[in-house]
Amino acid sequence: MTASQIVFSRRLRQTPFEERAIAQGAKAFTIYNHMPLSSVYESPEADYRHLCEHVQLWDVSVERQVEVIGPDALTLVELVTPRDMSKCKVGQCMYAPLVDEFGGVVNDPIILRLADDRFWVSIADSDVLLWMKGIAFGRGMDVTVFEPDVSPLAVQGPKSDALMATVVGPEVKDIGFFKFITTTIADTEVVLARSGWSGQGGFEIYLQDSSKGLALWDTIWEAGQPFHIRAGCPNLIERLETGLLSYGSDMTLENNPFECGLDRFFVLGKSAEYMSRDALDAIATNGVSQKIVNLKISGQPVRAPRSTYQVENESGQTVGYVTSLAWSPKYESNLSFASVAVSDSIPGTTLYVRVGDKRLSCVVCKQGWEC
Amino acid sequence: MTASQIVFSRRLRQTPFEERAIAQGAKAFTIYNHMPLSSVYESPEADYRHLCEHVQLWDVSVERQVEVIGPDALTLVELVTPRDMSKCKVGQCMYAPLVDEFGGVVNDPIILRLADDRFWVSIADSDVLLWMKGIAFGRGMDVTVFEPDVSPLAVQGPKSDALMATVVGPEVKDIGFFKFITTTIADTEVVLARSGWSGQGGFEIYLQDSSKGLALWDTIWEAGQPFHIRAGCPNLIERLETGLLSYGSDMTLENNPFECGLDRFFVLGKSAEYMSRDALDAIATNGVSQKIVNLKISGQPVRAPRSTYQVENESGQTVGYVTSLAWSPKYESNLSFASVAVSDSIPGTTLYVRVGDKRLSCVVCKQGWEC
Repeated sequence: MTASQIVFSRRLRQTPFEERAIAQGAKAFTIYNHMPLSSVYESPEADYRHLCEHVQLWDVSVERQVEVIGPDALTLVELVTPRDMSKCKVGQCMYAPLVDEFGGVVNDPIILRLADDRFWVSIADSDVLLWMKGIAFGRGMDVTVFEPDVSPLAVQGPKSDALMATVVGPEVKDIGFFKFITTTIADTEVVLARSGWSGQGGFEIYLQDSSKGLALWDTIWEAGQPFHIRAGCPNLIERLETGLLSYGSDMTLENNPFECGLDRFFVLGKSAEYMSRDALDAIATNGVSQKIVNLKISGQPVRAPRSTYQVENESGQTVGYVTSLAWSPKYESNLSFASVAVSDSIPGTTLYVRVGDKRLSCVVCKQGWEC
Repeated sequence: MTASQIVFSRRLRQTPFEERAIAQGAKAFTIYNHMPLSSVYESPEADYRHLCEHVQLWDVSVERQVEVIGPDALTLVELVTPRDMSKCKVGQCMYAPLVDEFGGVVNDPIILRLADDRFWVSIADSDVLLWMKGIAFGRGMDVTVFEPDVSPLAVQGPKSDALMATVVGPEVKDIGFFKFITTTIADTEVVLARSGWSGQGGFEIYLQDSSKGLALWDTIWEAGQPFHIRAGCPNLIERLETGLLSYGSDMTLENNPFECGLDRFFVLGKSAEYMSRDALDAIATNGVSQKIVNLKISGQPVRAPRSTYQVENESGQTVGYVTSLAWSPKYESNLSFASVAVSDSIPGTTLYVRVGDKRLSCVVCKQGWEC
């Protein structure tokens, strides 16, 4: 993880909360869906410790929405994912990997069902708008696919419920996991979902009018003062500890959902048409050669690679590569995700990571980092 | 144009030349097609002056290629652009705006025809891969659409011909504008095209094997020493002087090609099917309300906006917004592109740009900056 300067331009679209994120000390950014996402405030470690103890406000406008609305909305949403979206009720969110006709992962969004014939596909970093527009055009579907003026603001951390209860009312505590309500905050109607890109609990507030972004931020910020609120952002340490994969880092179009363990989010063979049916059936039958695993790396903190580190077996053969890495204060170890040969993916297996001229021993762990 | 830190991760894909670009002093980057693009070496002004006098080597790997190959390749390429691609001969490049069924600009690539049934779509910053894959899937076309391991390296500046003649041979001088040959440099086969994102002349060298990136860079770098070669990058000042629009900054999916002046690159009504036919016919008939113009802004150098500055008419009404801006040493003036009401788009019109509490007078210019 090297840092350099970024030059902003209009092409890297401004977020409705950006001014506040910068004023609160966002030191570094990444770019995600053609938009800046803050990456560090105080330091990755300090941000992590605060997130796990208090509550943070995250500008996650980069989670752009692809709205799908019209008579064929469900048909289109079903077509692009193996997950059975007919089971998604209005008011519910579902994590639904998008998979192409060859079994490649296109994106791994959360899909919100706003009405029987209306969805928001809340996307990771690839232009799902173009993907779904292209398919809809090609099929001649009766559906409109567009990017609405919607920007999520996340409230994350153990004090999220207490904070949002003071902002919205005690009813927020009744919002189930991956469920949402519509409500009004700072005089603007928002969708309020119990979700977010951390394991610390919290909400995502979907702003639907960019001009109200600063007012929405300020309202929550003020209410958050007694809870030691800080500005924050998705945190690499926390996501490794929690086991959250990042599209583009841990999986790409080159990977299928079985390699990434995403198959636990669907059952093959739903009744609706889905474009990945044949490809996924074949992969399920034939198996995969690589799998993403949790890999604990021994020794002192290792600097995250620019792109990857090679993973070797006992005899020095390359069997895979690291996709994400951070030092975990909780486990007092380097944690990484790595794509390794299936034969080397069994928890307890000892492997080696090649960092410069060092060969560091590591061990494959289960989800939750038990080894 | 504000600068901040960027945090690299695997998701922001490493380029085959990145190591050299950084070693040569790349100070700042932008992200483009999920990949870093250097933005500044010495300073925007110094980079600009050197580019206009000598020769530069640009890591433009971010110009990703979407390869379209198979029996329906031409049909698919024709479908996504109003430009008549049947006229594009093998060995030729064409600038071809991609336009959706509503008239929105999806991207503005250069398309290279490698064979009758094989194209590279050399893209600006949006996932054309997903767009064209989606359409091909939806239509059930007999075509393969994928991102090959191809990364362009640009040689730009007035000494480009002399340099490339020493690297490849005198035959490079015979390569016509927007034509290409295949040749071998540094023991790796490349496509060598007379093209590039500046008005200073030069070539784009399409590397087809990432592992040979540093060798290719080094070969040209060494040969470039007598020509005062430096590492460089697309330069905002130069592109404003030359009149090159940037997708995402100066136009988006919200704009149609007539608003951006891209209609000069095609004639409506080609015989092949194209998805934007009805929409563009309607726009051609009904006209547009906004147009991108060249706007020269008076006074001292103005800082480029984070997103935009409002443009007003004499009576203070907002009539548009700035999309790109830089100070031009050549014209000793601020140059900008702006989207303004058609009635205010006539060269010679006086308008005003609102910068903070200042109201700066400006004038609409012709292409080439005559006013």
